[in-house]
Amino acid sequence: MQIAILLFDRLTALDAVGPYEVLTRLPEAETVFVGERVGEVRTDTGRLGLRVDATLDEVTAPDVVVVPGGPGQAALMDHGPVLEWLRAVDRTSAWTTSVCTGSLLLAAAGLLTGRRATSHWLALDQLPAFDVTPVSQRVVFDGKYVTAAGVSSGIDMALALTARITGETVARMVQLGIEYDPQPPFTAGSPETAPPEVVEALRARTPLVLTGE
Amino acid sequence: MQIAILLFDRLTALDAVGPYEVLTRLPEAETVFVGERVGEVRTDTGRLGLRVDATLDEVTAPDVVVVPGGPGQAALMDHGPVLEWLRAVDRTSAWTTSVCTGSLLLAAAGLLTGRRATSHWLALDQLPAFDVTPVSQRVVFDGKYVTAAGVSSGIDMALALTARITGETVARMVQLGIEYDPQPPFTAGSPETAPPEVVEALRARTPLVLTGE
Repeated sequence: MQIAILLFDRLTALDAVGPYEVLTRLPEAETVFVGERVGEVRTDTGRLGLRVDATLDEVTAPDVVVVPGGPGQAALMDHGPVLEWLRAVDRTSAWTTSVCTGSLLLAAAGLLTGRRATSHWLALDQLPAFDVTPVSQRVVFDGKYVTAAGVSSGIDMALALTARITGETVARMVQLGIEYDPQPPFTAGSPETAPPEVVEALRARTPLVLTGE
Repeated sequence: MQIAILLFDRLTALDAVGPYEVLTRLPEAETVFVGERVGEVRTDTGRLGLRVDATLDEVTAPDVVVVPGGPGQAALMDHGPVLEWLRAVDRTSAWTTSVCTGSLLLAAAGLLTGRRATSHWLALDQLPAFDVTPVSQRVVFDGKYVTAAGVSSGIDMALALTARITGETVARMVQLGIEYDPQPPFTAGSPETAPPEVVEALRARTPLVLTGE
């Protein structure tokens, strides 16, 4: 089973690494990080380099496609090669997935038309322009399309997907392997639970807080 | 404020990327990934390359030190250059931290002697050999030493540390920025909560489940 994770400049690292850490532990999984050019991409903060090991042309039939988000996603919304690759691999994928604003790329490729999907809470309102119904939910399954909310939600998405692919016992083993027993120190992880002033501050300072710039 | 995250071959990616994604969003933070040689290291599964941007010699006085774990940690337990670097930067660090089996490296460097610390649940029993009291807890603060349990717990650790460094409002903003409102699909993230057969399976298959190999 091949799992292809798309990399591009100015992606948010955890969007990609959360699902990677889960899905790469599946029995028989062969994970590959794919992008336009082999070599390094830099994350949104510029502070971390991740390596693309295979070009889009080299990965033609992955079973699972994972599309992370991040500020760099915006530059790809009308970018032929990436959108064409997404459409091409989606024809044979078992699961086509995204984390954070990665769902906007799937939407721009036309893969979510008429479907329900989620995204980072600050980007949900961009989905209807692509005829996608936004759902304020951490993980949304719609057929073989699985979208996750912002950044850290890719871990939950990947565990839920693992259960669908290999069953709940393996999913529980992976969860225990990465000791995913989250205990966030605050109740602030969604706009519904965070204090209103924190939500407003984040809306106002989005570029700073989303990218660390 | 400089945040130095140690990279080495066969580390577990999420151990490093979880805290990175949180701490790099702090105002005035300058995160640097440091290692023995500039260039790529491969993660425990061999499937992801992360880039070391600075050598140990080039990072002499970070404010925060983050040491991830992973199978590759074992090869560094008697490795002079890394242990000497940990001792050197610890002299002036404000916070010296670890995720997963990274605490064994801090212990091997002698930095946790007589202190309380945690580690991946499968590695906790290795701490007493270094005169460290193992604590089965997700995040353990002991003075300026902050250790986190397995893999995913680095996110909780980094948020708790953010609150100490910059206050709770910024920590809540970062938490909302990465939409950290965890909803794991199963109750299986710790040996206390996972079904016994899952715990036993993991104990028996540790190399597989911990590294994806």
